[in-house]
Amino acid sequence: MKAEGTSSGQVLRIGSAINLAGGAISEYERLHAAVWPEVLSQIARSNIRNYSIFRMDQQLFSYLEYTGIDYVADMANMAADPEIQRWWEQCQPLQQQVPGTSGGEWWRTLPEIFHTD
Amino acid sequence: MKAEGTSSGQVLRIGSAINLAGGAISEYERLHAAVWPEVLSQIARSNIRNYSIFRMDQQLFSYLEYTGIDYVADMANMAADPEIQRWWEQCQPLQQQVPGTSGGEWWRTLPEIFHTD
Repeated sequence: MKAEGTSSGQVLRIGSAINLAGGAISEYERLHAAVWPEVLSQIARSNIRNYSIFRMDQQLFSYLEYTGIDYVADMANMAADPEIQRWWEQCQPLQQQVPGTSGGEWWRTLPEIFHTD
Repeated sequence: MKAEGTSSGQVLRIGSAINLAGGAISEYERLHAAVWPEVLSQIARSNIRNYSIFRMDQQLFSYLEYTGIDYVADMANMAADPEIQRWWEQCQPLQQQVPGTSGGEWWRTLPEIFHTD
């Protein structure tokens, strides 16, 4: 996600994509059916709301809403959380970046081409 | 989308995918940058809210929230709307279904494997 400015009170909708590694579907889904409470708490503290992940075969598509005012700082706080780091150590070997992912991103952020409230 | 039951007051989140035909990106994005007001009105009348489409190369991912109590009836109303039919005549030649799409679906509905409010 690029460091786009967000103004207070505005919701930033973020769609992104990543692939699953071969054979990783069942383990990834098992982890995500019971995400650790510490991970969910940090997601909320980082001002992420209404966060869903959908799967199409080996592809994952995520949708979330960022409600804070400093996305870069909130993501830095998330990355610094030891429980998040431990969670990512579980998840990242199960994932493979999609072509076109920008340097510095793990999931590829996708442009929104339509929205209606 | 399967005819899943929804209870009153509950939001049904729907993620789905379709491909764009070769060469169709610019025309599809042009249409979706200025969706006809009649189409947006029918979407709202069909109890669809917070509807976004994201693009990854030739792939489209959509996220929407259904807030009604009879999804099948609301989708039938949408399909019967002449302006919606005229809109779909513009859009469908620009799209190609993804493998694995169920009979009766146009976009492929994807299972949600994670959600946090």
